[in-house]
Amino acid sequence: MSERGHGMATDIAEQPAGFARLLEDGPSAAIAEVAAEVARRKPRHVLFVGRGTSDHAALYGAYLTEIRLGLPVASSSPSAITLYGARPDLTGTLVVGVSQSGGSPDLTGVMAVARETGALTLAVTNNPGSPLAEAAELSIDVASGHERAVAATKTYTAELLALLMLVEGIRAGDGALPADERAALARLPELAEQTLADPAAAELAQRYRFASSIVTTGRGYAYPTARETALKLMETSYVPSLAFSGADLQHGPLAMADPDVPVLAVVGEGPGGQSMRDVVARLGERRADVVTIGATDVPGASARLAVPAVDERHSPLLDILPLQQLALALSLARGEDPDSPRGLKKVTATL
Amino acid sequence: MSERGHGMATDIAEQPAGFARLLEDGPSAAIAEVAAEVARRKPRHVLFVGRGTSDHAALYGAYLTEIRLGLPVASSSPSAITLYGARPDLTGTLVVGVSQSGGSPDLTGVMAVARETGALTLAVTNNPGSPLAEAAELSIDVASGHERAVAATKTYTAELLALLMLVEGIRAGDGALPADERAALARLPELAEQTLADPAAAELAQRYRFASSIVTTGRGYAYPTARETALKLMETSYVPSLAFSGADLQHGPLAMADPDVPVLAVVGEGPGGQSMRDVVARLGERRADVVTIGATDVPGASARLAVPAVDERHSPLLDILPLQQLALALSLARGEDPDSPRGLKKVTATL
Repeated sequence: MSERGHGMATDIAEQPAGFARLLEDGPSAAIAEVAAEVARRKPRHVLFVGRGTSDHAALYGAYLTEIRLGLPVASSSPSAITLYGARPDLTGTLVVGVSQSGGSPDLTGVMAVARETGALTLAVTNNPGSPLAEAAELSIDVASGHERAVAATKTYTAELLALLMLVEGIRAGDGALPADERAALARLPELAEQTLADPAAAELAQRYRFASSIVTTGRGYAYPTARETALKLMETSYVPSLAFSGADLQHGPLAMADPDVPVLAVVGEGPGGQSMRDVVARLGERRADVVTIGATDVPGASARLAVPAVDERHSPLLDILPLQQLALALSLARGEDPDSPRGLKKVTATL
Repeated sequence: MSERGHGMATDIAEQPAGFARLLEDGPSAAIAEVAAEVARRKPRHVLFVGRGTSDHAALYGAYLTEIRLGLPVASSSPSAITLYGARPDLTGTLVVGVSQSGGSPDLTGVMAVARETGALTLAVTNNPGSPLAEAAELSIDVASGHERAVAATKTYTAELLALLMLVEGIRAGDGALPADERAALARLPELAEQTLADPAAAELAQRYRFASSIVTTGRGYAYPTARETALKLMETSYVPSLAFSGADLQHGPLAMADPDVPVLAVVGEGPGGQSMRDVVARLGERRADVVTIGATDVPGASARLAVPAVDERHSPLLDILPLQQLALALSLARGEDPDSPRGLKKVTATL
């Protein structure tokens, strides 16, 4: 019960059930209703705000919005509004605040300003009674239940799935998911279970026992996964971890790549993964130690964490699972306590 | 002539002259003309695209846009457009592509799509004959001359100043800078000269000779400086460097902070700097080694790189100077060649 890492391990293991829960009739219908209302209001832009892990879920939402809805994504730094008093005109903009706790004062502040300045506001949280949810006009509950560890895992994937259901529901117009999307998502809990059953990620942790830093990379839909992996490694194992989009990696940070800096590259089955293959090849030429996360082997990489082959758009919900397991195992291998990282609290109050 | 680091040192030293050149009548008038045209077209949103160093200049432009113009900033990932074929409706949007070479195919692709879909397009480059400048309707030449080192320094600060002059010109309406802004900017070349004359940054490099990673942080206007510093350190010294906004640092990465991970914190005189003081205090409590960049001492920090006290909005043009010197000196101290980082080329072709 109180063994080190029990909380995070339990959170991680609950993700297939978390997917299944959001896909049940009740929660699905609640998200569909929000999606239908958003579609009815016809936003011309979408602005996502989030911090930490939830910012990575928001980034996934941003890719979905651009690619699936064809809507421009706005990017507001909360500090412009909360510190410098900026009051951008947000008429016609959907502002989505993503936060597991719903308790960050800066996000709540942005949400309140957004609502005042004419935006349609939506909170995506694991706490429907939170200040963020109260401040927003619409609200989605990701229904993950209590998260034991400070490092977020199951709330992250629940946020991803909720945002996916939201965007696909908006795309459909009436909020309801098309039959093929429903069918693809219905397989998620089982695929997640299958992915988590693989012991490879925990075994791989040994490889990084003495790494002084780790680079993560991915492109397109996989970039949020790279970002979230780096944050998980830092939160639980205190190993400096740098996330780069595959494109940015070639603009400078590539110089850092050498056999002493391990690289975790998310290489899916789609345009983002295709463009990552060149990046992995270049890293391989530099004798970097590259481990890929994906469904097929990639030339230049020395090992692979296997995940099921699904549409690249759905991959972020599965790709992160072995990487969470890796962060947990690495933390334990380094003698740390992944449930209670030093210096961190569950709700972070930034102004 | 061919001594190691001569190119980067020369580029760095040319920055005061670069500021002076952009502020001369001819280049000023050219930027004012572009600003007046933008103001006339009344964009409702601004979207910045850039990669690497130029993306950090673009980020500065984004803060200026939100705070000084009150316009929402859009954020498009080039990959959504170039890899996934997204075609967001950009009517009424000003799309600003920032690139020193103007040669990145992905940015040029985004620019072409933006122009097709109704956006007002503007290229900010150091190469007015480049594909990016050709693809855009409007163009600003930052006129930095040939950059010797692969790691960009003088083109970065020239991009910052050009974007500042652009935004303030749009704010004025007719493109011309108000008298007080002109007066403040007129002092820049001398202040930059004075900042670069201080040997403190080069001396500080010794402190990081054996650092296995470095954290950089800043908030608001100072956040682009933190990002650019991290990139410079990685490009020239291959030391993994992690940039966090002061807010994000408290959401996870703070766990990493300990006496072995040095922190460079940009703490200016304004709301962003004020909010950083709490972050530095928290880092100090965790016995992190914090060096600040700013005009006044900050409790919790162990040393400071001095920069002149100017409006926080103008600070990014000066704060980066000692940090470039630090990157150069650290690279030399580690026996590397800052002019030609391994694995990098001046123009990076990402698709």
